[in-house]
Amino acid sequence: MRAYHLETPGTVDGIAPRETDRPEPGPRDILVRVRAVSLNKRDLLILNGTYPLKAVPDVIPLSDGAGEVVAVGAEVTRFAVGDRVASTYFPKWIDGRITPARIDQPGATLPGMLTEYARLDENAAVRVPGHLGWEEAACLPCAGVTAWHALTGGEAVVPGETVLTLGTGALSLFAVQFAKLLGAEVVATTSSPQKAERLKALGADHVVRYADHPAWGRTVRDLTGGRGVDLVVETVGPETIEQSVRASALYGRIVLVSANSPRKASLEITTDALASSLVTMRRLFVGSRTHFESMNRALTLHGTRPVVDRTFGFDEVHEAFRYYESGVAFGKVVIRVA
Amino acid sequence: MRAYHLETPGTVDGIAPRETDRPEPGPRDILVRVRAVSLNKRDLLILNGTYPLKAVPDVIPLSDGAGEVVAVGAEVTRFAVGDRVASTYFPKWIDGRITPARIDQPGATLPGMLTEYARLDENAAVRVPGHLGWEEAACLPCAGVTAWHALTGGEAVVPGETVLTLGTGALSLFAVQFAKLLGAEVVATTSSPQKAERLKALGADHVVRYADHPAWGRTVRDLTGGRGVDLVVETVGPETIEQSVRASALYGRIVLVSANSPRKASLEITTDALASSLVTMRRLFVGSRTHFESMNRALTLHGTRPVVDRTFGFDEVHEAFRYYESGVAFGKVVIRVA
Amino acid sequence: MRAYHLETPGTVDGIAPRETDRPEPGPRDILVRVRAVSLNKRDLLILNGTYPLKAVPDVIPLSDGAGEVVAVGAEVTRFAVGDRVASTYFPKWIDGRITPARIDQPGATLPGMLTEYARLDENAAVRVPGHLGWEEAACLPCAGVTAWHALTGGEAVVPGETVLTLGTGALSLFAVQFAKLLGAEVVATTSSPQKAERLKALGADHVVRYADHPAWGRTVRDLTGGRGVDLVVETVGPETIEQSVRASALYGRIVLVSANSPRKASLEITTDALASSLVTMRRLFVGSRTHFESMNRALTLHGTRPVVDRTFGFDEVHEAFRYYESGVAFGKVVIRVA
Amino acid sequence: MRAYHLETPGTVDGIAPRETDRPEPGPRDILVRVRAVSLNKRDLLILNGTYPLKAVPDVIPLSDGAGEVVAVGAEVTRFAVGDRVASTYFPKWIDGRITPARIDQPGATLPGMLTEYARLDENAAVRVPGHLGWEEAACLPCAGVTAWHALTGGEAVVPGETVLTLGTGALSLFAVQFAKLLGAEVVATTSSPQKAERLKALGADHVVRYADHPAWGRTVRDLTGGRGVDLVVETVGPETIEQSVRASALYGRIVLVSANSPRKASLEITTDALASSLVTMRRLFVGSRTHFESMNRALTLHGTRPVVDRTFGFDEVHEAFRYYESGVAFGKVVIRVA
Repeated sequence: MRAYHLETPGTVDGIAPRETDRPEPGPRDILVRVRAVSLNKRDLLILNGTYPLKAVPDVIPLSDGAGEVVAVGAEVTRFAVGDRVASTYFPKWIDGRITPARIDQPGATLPGMLTEYARLDENAAVRVPGHLGWEEAACLPCAGVTAWHALTGGEAVVPGETVLTLGTGALSLFAVQFAKLLGAEVVATTSSPQKAERLKALGADHVVRYADHPAWGRTVRDLTGGRGVDLVVETVGPETIEQSVRASALYGRIVLVSANSPRKASLEITTDALASSLVTMRRLFVGSRTHFESMNRALTLHGTRPVVDRTFGFDEVHEAFRYYESGVAFGKVVIRVA
Repeated sequence: MRAYHLETPGTVDGIAPRETDRPEPGPRDILVRVRAVSLNKRDLLILNGTYPLKAVPDVIPLSDGAGEVVAVGAEVTRFAVGDRVASTYFPKWIDGRITPARIDQPGATLPGMLTEYARLDENAAVRVPGHLGWEEAACLPCAGVTAWHALTGGEAVVPGETVLTLGTGALSLFAVQFAKLLGAEVVATTSSPQKAERLKALGADHVVRYADHPAWGRTVRDLTGGRGVDLVVETVGPETIEQSVRASALYGRIVLVSANSPRKASLEITTDALASSLVTMRRLFVGSRTHFESMNRALTLHGTRPVVDRTFGFDEVHEAFRYYESGVAFGKVVIRVA
Repeated sequence: MRAYHLETPGTVDGIAPRETDRPEPGPRDILVRVRAVSLNKRDLLILNGTYPLKAVPDVIPLSDGAGEVVAVGAEVTRFAVGDRVASTYFPKWIDGRITPARIDQPGATLPGMLTEYARLDENAAVRVPGHLGWEEAACLPCAGVTAWHALTGGEAVVPGETVLTLGTGALSLFAVQFAKLLGAEVVATTSSPQKAERLKALGADHVVRYADHPAWGRTVRDLTGGRGVDLVVETVGPETIEQSVRASALYGRIVLVSANSPRKASLEITTDALASSLVTMRRLFVGSRTHFESMNRALTLHGTRPVVDRTFGFDEVHEAFRYYESGVAFGKVVIRVA
Repeated sequence: MRAYHLETPGTVDGIAPRETDRPEPGPRDILVRVRAVSLNKRDLLILNGTYPLKAVPDVIPLSDGAGEVVAVGAEVTRFAVGDRVASTYFPKWIDGRITPARIDQPGATLPGMLTEYARLDENAAVRVPGHLGWEEAACLPCAGVTAWHALTGGEAVVPGETVLTLGTGALSLFAVQFAKLLGAEVVATTSSPQKAERLKALGADHVVRYADHPAWGRTVRDLTGGRGVDLVVETVGPETIEQSVRASALYGRIVLVSANSPRKASLEITTDALASSLVTMRRLFVGSRTHFESMNRALTLHGTRPVVDRTFGFDEVHEAFRYYESGVAFGKVVIRVA
């Protein structure tokens, strides 16, 4: 089989294909014929060596993949050959809270999904919704689960509340879609008129062009009749946190989900912005398998589909990385494996 | 002005009109020109003397009304003349938890809304959504707020989860509508094929004809692929609780909102039904003003309208009560006051 | 090695010792030299075939045991030889919520702890607090964890709130101890004056002799100045639930933790008792490994010790079961294995 | 009667006594003979004009006071003459969440407690625990309630968890006491060896001398065996937040309760500190009357007493403010009124 390996970190060209033997599933493993994978910002950070978790040498990249079960170990109970599955971001994190002992990730400390065949612990996979194609299913494990966790993992968002999303990264697009499923009003931001239209088509009730409004926190707040937004899916961090606080309702919740390199910046919030605010800030790391399964029920009931921007072939991996890195995508960048 | 008073409990004919002086608003009161009122089961229990809270003699009936503010006391800050408002069920319950000291209710221990003019503490009213007419607005205070509280007041219902409603009382119809706003799948029950169609038109994904399925808990569970429902809006109680438990998912939540006479029955759940269940049961009493305001934001965003079955005139009060008592209504029974 | 097996269900004499080979730990297993085990009500139900989960034939009985790690598999990371550990009740339930797939239990569907050597998945064990002897450590997995989960797993008990415990089973004694750690006031019940004194010595602020007060719900409520208790650790069920509701505060929480045979009875609560109550009822099944670890931190900080009533030798298994079955114990019944 | 008024903001000498008529209670008011009052940092901010809420001209200072009810309005139901009461910080905030409409405060927008007689809305007072003297009772409304709210208002602190308090302000001392009632381990910080001893006498399990450890976050974390603290009562803010994050457990909770002038500073947290943290940060504003009542039950059950540093006479108001401002106090600074 063919798999890509991160041979030389620091450059897309350091990701190289190799021919190797198919992995043999252990007694509690499944073997997956990977059909599609997708890229996330963390994959660029791992490539560049700025991800908080250090990758193992020669790792197979990418956390996100979907495919078909082609073999199962003798003790496997969760899956059968022919099942359509996706990988999970934290294979050891099933439910409850993550712990340092559950931190391993494909494409970082474990072999990733940029391969024709992947061996997964049966606990590290979920069935994918039946209405999704392989390319769509490959979009879910990181950005989808993170957005779902952000919107459903803490104090509930109730219909009629307002959710703020920032920009047009894939995670933010999932957040727009999920916030609409929750019955919320959605305010999104972008600097591009074209992307503004696409955000509205996806469900955003209001789009704020932040380039026109440096103090866009106030602009967002005004859109809510002065009340402020109830939840911010904070995908940026240092550059936006002050305005996110100013955009928030008295008891607003800010969920920090940025994957910025950890060494470069600081969150800085003026005490002036906090003076009349009881905002809660919490961070999260993607989500557990239970979050993934919960999201899948919602996707299935509502027939929701991830936004795929562009799909590349299995021999266009470098092009896919470069395209993703350019930041022009509106939605997920996918590589078709087979 | 004209107002009805409960002169002789026990019979609809005991509700009689009187001409009295308009109340004068105190410094923190508002005077409301009532436009419409609606009936709830509790009004029948009060009429029959079986409501847990004893009504004061000659009380003006009904908790639910909507109208226009026509005068305000000197210290009033929440409202101005011309505002469109509805009464709240517990005038002293603003937020947080109800306490014995916050238990007073219009139509029971306080003058109710079946009157041309009602004096309300400014804290005991809310603005009504702009898209609703008077008759629709009059449907909200009891059944609407209770359904909202049931669905949003505890552990969140997330999109993709399943909600079970029982029958076609007004509260259950609100619950169907609100569960859909929350992104849930809805299973409803009824014994009537005609009502089954109307439930589906209102949003129910599945309707179970319980008369055909005495063990309908199992039928409902099967509809969810064996997983069970996540939340039951339990509007009945003794006759249904066993099946509600059997219909529930492992961690299902049953919200008890029945207004049955308290002296007649018991909840009886076999330990067999509980043996493989971690269901949570909680009761609630309508809701606070904060629940009402939260619901109104959802109604406004989604343009949701209460289901009004039939409207009577202010001189048809007895007919309205008798019609409501007959149990044939699908939706709220309203009296137009002016 | 020697292990007991449940050869003939239905009688204590059906538990018989056998000489077998020591189990070999798999790559992610540990081998534990069992030092002590303890009995729980579920072990009697399993013995009598009335436990909801069907035991495998010839199962080694008992869920609760503690001992020393004497060998570890090649991939084990959580433990080393020499570690002092206890078994967990649900080996597959690490954190979050239990699911049907995590329901296996030692002494029922898995080999139990009444053996000289037990092979455990490394995820199915916890380190035991250093201040506890083997016999004390063996008391924790079922009764200890259940009481901890009941008191800390839902809405928090805050200092100054009141907790009600029923009777003097081992679980109730843990509940008394843990409620005191939480800063709560404790009301306990018993019918025995001698046990009343021991409950007070253990920390109970008030003891109600229920035999003297058939309507003891009212008696308990009066002890709280009419406010009612905030949490009931409901270890009985059908016989006590009505009084537990009557003893509860307006927003009281009743945690159902009984292990009654599931086919015999029903919870029956009069709607009269519920009429002025917003009590929440929830059930729980013991707890996850995370609950166990959280409890161990509390035990360690406070130097808390389980109440051991009596310890039997490894050749007194039948006597231990009979003594436990007699119901006279105040605290845990332990068998010393080695 | 005599009352002090803030005649000239900016200086302690601007607080001057006046002889005025006793206020007359309205129908829902009580008249309180004030016995003792206490000072809080917010009183210095109001004096200096840097408090976020602008004080009314000539306001009677101080939020915190306790005394005896000497008259009640005709409609008062909560209190009778002779009751021992304390004022509440937010008279309009009874339960649930604060809103902008509930923001009024004695000593700022409402007349404060530095007076011989205070008129209070009956909803704006609570009974004080019977074991407390007047000077102790006067310590509760701001610092006591804030500490209680910080420790019990969010995710529960369970026994065995660790709480971090900063410095020896009165609020931090309450936090030490309350954390011990909750069964937590307490780490406190101070720069003074003498105060370290007093913190330990009050219940702190560990005291970190932060002057000796600029990177005290690490020091604190090491004290917890590397796990980090579960809750930080963050009474400082900009100078400490980075270390508070570093001291915190993976899912640590930081409660921001500083009363710093809002215009001077910013919270700055490096993304490096956040990289391996899922810490939640929330702010709070003192607490509701319901928090106060909950705290009082705990104080009563445990016989807990506030730490009073020093008491001044009613003609020593300037001395009291100057002493408080000097920052040397360990515990509350009280003024005896009568």
